[in-house]
Amino acid sequence: MFFQHIFDKSLAQASYLVGCQKSGEAIVIDAKRDVDTYLQLARQNELRITHITETHIHADFLSGSRELAALTGAGLYLSDEGGPDWQYQFPHTRLHHDDVIRVGNISLKILHTPGHTPESISFLLTDHPASEEPVMLFTGDFVFVGDIGRPDLLEKAAGLKGSQEIGARQMYQSLKQFAALPGHVQVWPGHGAGSACGKALGAVPSTTVGYEKIRNWAFQFEGNQQGFIDYLLADQPEPPRYFAEMKIRNKIPRSLMEHVPSLPLLGPDDLLRALEEGIPIVDTRHKNDFAQGFIPGSINIQHNNSLSTWAGWFLAYDKPFIIVAEGEKVLEITRKFMRIGLDQMLGYVSDVDWYPENGRKLLQMVNVDANFVQDALDNDKMPVIDIRGTVEFQAGHLPQAKHLFLGTLPNKLDKLPMNQPFIIHCQAGDRSAIGTSLLHRLGFHEVYNYAGGYADWVNKGLPVVKN
Amino acid sequence: MFFQHIFDKSLAQASYLVGCQKSGEAIVIDAKRDVDTYLQLARQNELRITHITETHIHADFLSGSRELAALTGAGLYLSDEGGPDWQYQFPHTRLHHDDVIRVGNISLKILHTPGHTPESISFLLTDHPASEEPVMLFTGDFVFVGDIGRPDLLEKAAGLKGSQEIGARQMYQSLKQFAALPGHVQVWPGHGAGSACGKALGAVPSTTVGYEKIRNWAFQFEGNQQGFIDYLLADQPEPPRYFAEMKIRNKIPRSLMEHVPSLPLLGPDDLLRALEEGIPIVDTRHKNDFAQGFIPGSINIQHNNSLSTWAGWFLAYDKPFIIVAEGEKVLEITRKFMRIGLDQMLGYVSDVDWYPENGRKLLQMVNVDANFVQDALDNDKMPVIDIRGTVEFQAGHLPQAKHLFLGTLPNKLDKLPMNQPFIIHCQAGDRSAIGTSLLHRLGFHEVYNYAGGYADWVNKGLPVVKN
Amino acid sequence: MFFQHIFDKSLAQASYLVGCQKSGEAIVIDAKRDVDTYLQLARQNELRITHITETHIHADFLSGSRELAALTGAGLYLSDEGGPDWQYQFPHTRLHHDDVIRVGNISLKILHTPGHTPESISFLLTDHPASEEPVMLFTGDFVFVGDIGRPDLLEKAAGLKGSQEIGARQMYQSLKQFAALPGHVQVWPGHGAGSACGKALGAVPSTTVGYEKIRNWAFQFEGNQQGFIDYLLADQPEPPRYFAEMKIRNKIPRSLMEHVPSLPLLGPDDLLRALEEGIPIVDTRHKNDFAQGFIPGSINIQHNNSLSTWAGWFLAYDKPFIIVAEGEKVLEITRKFMRIGLDQMLGYVSDVDWYPENGRKLLQMVNVDANFVQDALDNDKMPVIDIRGTVEFQAGHLPQAKHLFLGTLPNKLDKLPMNQPFIIHCQAGDRSAIGTSLLHRLGFHEVYNYAGGYADWVNKGLPVVKN
Amino acid sequence: MFFQHIFDKSLAQASYLVGCQKSGEAIVIDAKRDVDTYLQLARQNELRITHITETHIHADFLSGSRELAALTGAGLYLSDEGGPDWQYQFPHTRLHHDDVIRVGNISLKILHTPGHTPESISFLLTDHPASEEPVMLFTGDFVFVGDIGRPDLLEKAAGLKGSQEIGARQMYQSLKQFAALPGHVQVWPGHGAGSACGKALGAVPSTTVGYEKIRNWAFQFEGNQQGFIDYLLADQPEPPRYFAEMKIRNKIPRSLMEHVPSLPLLGPDDLLRALEEGIPIVDTRHKNDFAQGFIPGSINIQHNNSLSTWAGWFLAYDKPFIIVAEGEKVLEITRKFMRIGLDQMLGYVSDVDWYPENGRKLLQMVNVDANFVQDALDNDKMPVIDIRGTVEFQAGHLPQAKHLFLGTLPNKLDKLPMNQPFIIHCQAGDRSAIGTSLLHRLGFHEVYNYAGGYADWVNKGLPVVKN
Repeated sequence: MFFQHIFDKSLAQASYLVGCQKSGEAIVIDAKRDVDTYLQLARQNELRITHITETHIHADFLSGSRELAALTGAGLYLSDEGGPDWQYQFPHTRLHHDDVIRVGNISLKILHTPGHTPESISFLLTDHPASEEPVMLFTGDFVFVGDIGRPDLLEKAAGLKGSQEIGARQMYQSLKQFAALPGHVQVWPGHGAGSACGKALGAVPSTTVGYEKIRNWAFQFEGNQQGFIDYLLADQPEPPRYFAEMKIRNKIPRSLMEHVPSLPLLGPDDLLRALEEGIPIVDTRHKNDFAQGFIPGSINIQHNNSLSTWAGWFLAYDKPFIIVAEGEKVLEITRKFMRIGLDQMLGYVSDVDWYPENGRKLLQMVNVDANFVQDALDNDKMPVIDIRGTVEFQAGHLPQAKHLFLGTLPNKLDKLPMNQPFIIHCQAGDRSAIGTSLLHRLGFHEVYNYAGGYADWVNKGLPVVKN
Repeated sequence: MFFQHIFDKSLAQASYLVGCQKSGEAIVIDAKRDVDTYLQLARQNELRITHITETHIHADFLSGSRELAALTGAGLYLSDEGGPDWQYQFPHTRLHHDDVIRVGNISLKILHTPGHTPESISFLLTDHPASEEPVMLFTGDFVFVGDIGRPDLLEKAAGLKGSQEIGARQMYQSLKQFAALPGHVQVWPGHGAGSACGKALGAVPSTTVGYEKIRNWAFQFEGNQQGFIDYLLADQPEPPRYFAEMKIRNKIPRSLMEHVPSLPLLGPDDLLRALEEGIPIVDTRHKNDFAQGFIPGSINIQHNNSLSTWAGWFLAYDKPFIIVAEGEKVLEITRKFMRIGLDQMLGYVSDVDWYPENGRKLLQMVNVDANFVQDALDNDKMPVIDIRGTVEFQAGHLPQAKHLFLGTLPNKLDKLPMNQPFIIHCQAGDRSAIGTSLLHRLGFHEVYNYAGGYADWVNKGLPVVKN
Repeated sequence: MFFQHIFDKSLAQASYLVGCQKSGEAIVIDAKRDVDTYLQLARQNELRITHITETHIHADFLSGSRELAALTGAGLYLSDEGGPDWQYQFPHTRLHHDDVIRVGNISLKILHTPGHTPESISFLLTDHPASEEPVMLFTGDFVFVGDIGRPDLLEKAAGLKGSQEIGARQMYQSLKQFAALPGHVQVWPGHGAGSACGKALGAVPSTTVGYEKIRNWAFQFEGNQQGFIDYLLADQPEPPRYFAEMKIRNKIPRSLMEHVPSLPLLGPDDLLRALEEGIPIVDTRHKNDFAQGFIPGSINIQHNNSLSTWAGWFLAYDKPFIIVAEGEKVLEITRKFMRIGLDQMLGYVSDVDWYPENGRKLLQMVNVDANFVQDALDNDKMPVIDIRGTVEFQAGHLPQAKHLFLGTLPNKLDKLPMNQPFIIHCQAGDRSAIGTSLLHRLGFHEVYNYAGGYADWVNKGLPVVKN
Repeated sequence: MFFQHIFDKSLAQASYLVGCQKSGEAIVIDAKRDVDTYLQLARQNELRITHITETHIHADFLSGSRELAALTGAGLYLSDEGGPDWQYQFPHTRLHHDDVIRVGNISLKILHTPGHTPESISFLLTDHPASEEPVMLFTGDFVFVGDIGRPDLLEKAAGLKGSQEIGARQMYQSLKQFAALPGHVQVWPGHGAGSACGKALGAVPSTTVGYEKIRNWAFQFEGNQQGFIDYLLADQPEPPRYFAEMKIRNKIPRSLMEHVPSLPLLGPDDLLRALEEGIPIVDTRHKNDFAQGFIPGSINIQHNNSLSTWAGWFLAYDKPFIIVAEGEKVLEITRKFMRIGLDQMLGYVSDVDWYPENGRKLLQMVNVDANFVQDALDNDKMPVIDIRGTVEFQAGHLPQAKHLFLGTLPNKLDKLPMNQPFIIHCQAGDRSAIGTSLLHRLGFHEVYNYAGGYADWVNKGLPVVKN
């Protein structure tokens, strides 16, 4: 079992990545909004995020669960407890008390532990087959180190009159469930010292059921429910005003294109939707990588010093576009686009490995060599189109080659051979990679790319024509 | 004289920062759009950018001159030559042939050198008092190393029929001006190898008048204007499609709030406009720095682990805001805001040193000590308001102190003493810095900040009241 | 209580920083050699490292305990159990079974838990006054998550015949101690999955006493000691050859100047020794910071573009030196020294705040203003020495000023006023900061620094002499 | 022609990288000691550094020419002018007045221009075939922007009585040479403002012959040699003491292993010498890259979490070693070694592409697949050796496989088949890459690496034996 505690100091908020090394699957609990953290951790540890869950509808931060689901394709598993007012209003798998989530060899049993909020659940983790005994409990804002979750937020921050008394009573009952667990179970809560979700949280990241029963004040009211309630409701810190906003935003559907603005990572779903809507995809990878597998409809403009110029040929200033690029190169690429005013980049996808799913297939460029081209010319098998600049063409070109400049190709489709294969080439293969992908996008699916280009032809001593 | 050549490889485009160390002034010629480069260079070399100019309306990149002017307050000096169609359509100082721009001890004489475009000018620099002889010529797209600017872009990219022939003739005349300059004058052009603004540009950054007269092909057509024109117009590379777009965008007014999206640096003008429109400014500097000088109306929420929580109290989710922060901290601050969904950050200003101009003044917080507070209480001089949480207040507070929690202050202004001074404090000064600045914003200008706060009071052994 | 688990993946080795926020003290358990990690963590969390301990003499990594002690002045607390062959041979406080280390409100009780090695101890932590019940056990290589420490290393790696059987028997007994602890106690071990110190370590960072009793194989041999021993000794992985070397190096004294070569952080002790030995200290801080407190004998050469030139004046090529500089600037400073061949930098100290201890005092530069100098000159109170270059002096200097160039000052001490105060100055204060500190080093303790220098004098319109 | 001006602000020192893009060759003039700058520039611009030269024996910085030659294999071209006292005392190609260095299409003509020092030379660059006219002059410390080199350093810093007068006379003559050059020639000097090698250097990086003749004071003494000499020698700034040291170190041979301590880049020569001396080379590249070409004698220990453990098996604590690793990974690798006390890393080589020269060849690992192994076993062609741990071997192994643990292989060479081929394997290929390279180093040259290992064997459903 793999286990990682992720702590955001600015909100004193804890989230968790737990994985099964055997199956390679992992679950994220209570994701923060900058979800790149989880993607990176999963990659470093060779895990796929397949499950995403939350302990409750958070009030103090914007959950990243949906962004993470969009980026990974993982399933969302969320509480269906607490009644109709506490239902997540976007698609998810509904969790009830005693349900079990299985992530490879790991199981997480759902405990409904209301009090902080009506829908709050905890996850009791068992690490099969090492043991059938539970080993960890993820409590969210139910039990903290040395404290428990406050039940008054809904009343104070969301204005639900009377709800804090109800919550306090539920908390009293939920704590009995907690106390009945084996003392050795580790407890990993949703917050640490500094959070406004309780009043006396400890700075240590974890505790155990047994230790909390001894030192947590909440367990010192045996049989005295009212004393417990009074103490619990007294002296809670003022709930920050923005809590009300979070409660709503974490529950209702968000606009589909509402990305995290400062983290323009896009997920497969975003990109598939973009494809449907015809939004251009510029794949900035090396032409060789692109040739081996590319998304149908994407154009290959490599990230080199010509990137902005060619992008300027094919992108519109008033329309959004998406790029394929490794994360660490996005900033530099953005600068290059920005310098010529191409500001409409929606975001980026870091690779295309996820594409071949559900019957989808990556395309491959058909690269051919000089022999193939020579044979085509000698035996009149198919035309050869030279997409270099006019000056280059005139300075020397293949016999019988036809000239159509790359930059204006989209305007001259009628000059291209319809419904038959043809060969294109440039000087050394960069431009013909753009051209081949562009032609695919425009509906020409039998394009052969002579990647070696005119340079290769000349190197091989083959005959050329000067004009 | 300070001189720096700035070269953007992706567009093979050169810009220049030239300064007079004596006066501390500097000029930027042909700024690219990511203008942070110039701001950083100027800062490192203790120069202020006071003048901004361009050799012509660029076709191949989006000029950053206006962004730079907004950020620095520098004047824009632009060509008024070339006739009514070639006028910049936003405010600027108009330059004509033989005009001189003076930047400290440096003078730049304007030469109208049409050909590439009708409004093209060059700058002949003299470094007084070292010499009265010119030392450098900034040619833009007029003369390159080994080549000259193409006159056909307007016809090919912007569709101006017949303009290329006219341009070529003008170029022939302009070259005579060039040839008449002393041979030793250094030539710093606007582009290097790889640019589409010419056909045979060299990779060396600079040249001289004398050397170009010997080796540049353009000077080998003595008395043969038509031969020159034919050669010049022949074999030019295809102008990228986006050139037409650039020509327009570099000439017409842009929307006032059209910032560079991936470079959210704001200039004084932006911030002043934001102040007028009531857009909140969150100053994230250390409270001590803030106390010594802050923009009226700005709120001090320091960049520490409580930043997002306090921002959540005072910012609205659907309204933009601006921050004051050093550039290198903006990314982390953005993450903190983003985690609670505060996505409407318009941009940032890196300091407030520019504010005290034209009669404007920075405010200072009036920090007072325990003696002052004690005297105020003992002699009933002014009330003391404790802005901590209720629990903290009840656990112990100053005698006679009134309690008003910081987070809800804006809703309880009627509880505050009107038209009279008062003291506020918290535990140790962080929250009272927020409070003092917030109250200033809300119209309370006689607030004394007991920055030491309750912690200082207790440390000094002064009497407290428990509730 | 503050708690941080530090995990080095390359050795699957865990260390811990535990602190008491009330007292600001902290303890490090089982420090790795790149101890900057702990220094940074302590600083971020406002803790001082006051105690350093180890669970045993490590075989698989070089301990950083002594480096950390040298850097922080913290006490070393090490096991005195296991007999004469297992004693640390350098100064430390000796720990025995049942001893208690107190770190603010935290107590760590020593449990002698031999088996892996004879001297192995564990630390049972109680967090007073929260509870008198223990909350955590640091087990080192005694009990891991799902496994226990191997007792065969000494025999296999260090060649101690027969020791593995003895160790296995001791382990059997030590486990009884473990099993007697409350089930809820958290267990934080010294290694995770991937370590060669056991055979089946889990990848989860922590566990509990109760859970291990259920699932750890080592507790399934109730009453069957021989079965336990057989199983424990069987199938252990080959111990890496370097383990033998580590065992020795972690036990015996290391050469005093044996620093971590790629981490040239020096501690107070190193610097004090260097002072005794006359090794020069170059303090590269800003002159204003230096002026407010500097180590006697240190020279202030600020980290700017003149650093290497002035260092070239005062440092010898064949002698080591030490610098005072912030960590993040060391690399750039090293490059500057390196460019002129000053390669003998022993290391750096990041600040001088620790110096005023045990009766030591930082010195302050006595900066004076123009009035003071004018009064000295007018009333013949003390001489004024101009340490600028000859050319500068001749171009204009204060009336009656004597000229002695800074660079050659050390050779001209006889030209300086003995046993009487005097004033020095340069153009604007950088060189006079060097000069003042240099003269202090050379025994002149009544030097007044006219920091404004000649520039200030001229600005004030005071009379000058040209020569 | 490619041209790059490199300016070190801390010494106000300029160096140059000039290349011919056609031939891919480049020359470096006046290299500073941190030569990684040039290596990076060359790589980015697809140039090989083939020539290294200097204008004179520098006094103000330690030259990096020899380090750069060692790292690149480039030739050293140095002045042989100035008489016997001014000869570089280490191997180099000797340059005389009127000699020409050719770097592809570029030629640099040597002008002997004594004055600053007797051996000073300048380089007059012509860019063929663009022109037969010279275009640039690299003047070193002969002519600066607005000033000329001082001739008094040898007398003042090195104690050569009378030499400054002689130098001044030579300078007078040398300036005549300069003045006779075409006015349009660009002048790129060795220093800018802030250097102590002159008294009034300009801050602009370059100038021209014509402009200097007009404004440089040195050309205003037509026919008045003595006036020139008096002015030149007057008012020079004090030469820093370390200049004397530099003069010597830049002239005499340095100890062969004297590397730049803070820049542990090694060159081919260093590595070849290390090979001769038997110093171990640890190649930390990925096993697949290593398999395709490795230096005979190097051991492949990949840079992953097992690096330190395996290095601990095969490296000695008291002996130096060298690694092959990309520059950006060296810091992390150093930390990993350091943690187990392997502090004797001499340096690193970033790749092995340079090795196959002068008849040397990289080796390749012979990786074989399951069929090959099966055939070998079935037909008794060669033995199979399993180098995993004993526990792994016993849990299941190939039929007839012999077990020899990797860590102790060097001690059990007698157990290996002599003079005959054999196969080795581990679990999945990491350890067998170590093993194969180790065995090569130990003299076994017919080792077949079953890289798929036991994991592949089991995956294919082939028969195994449990023990």
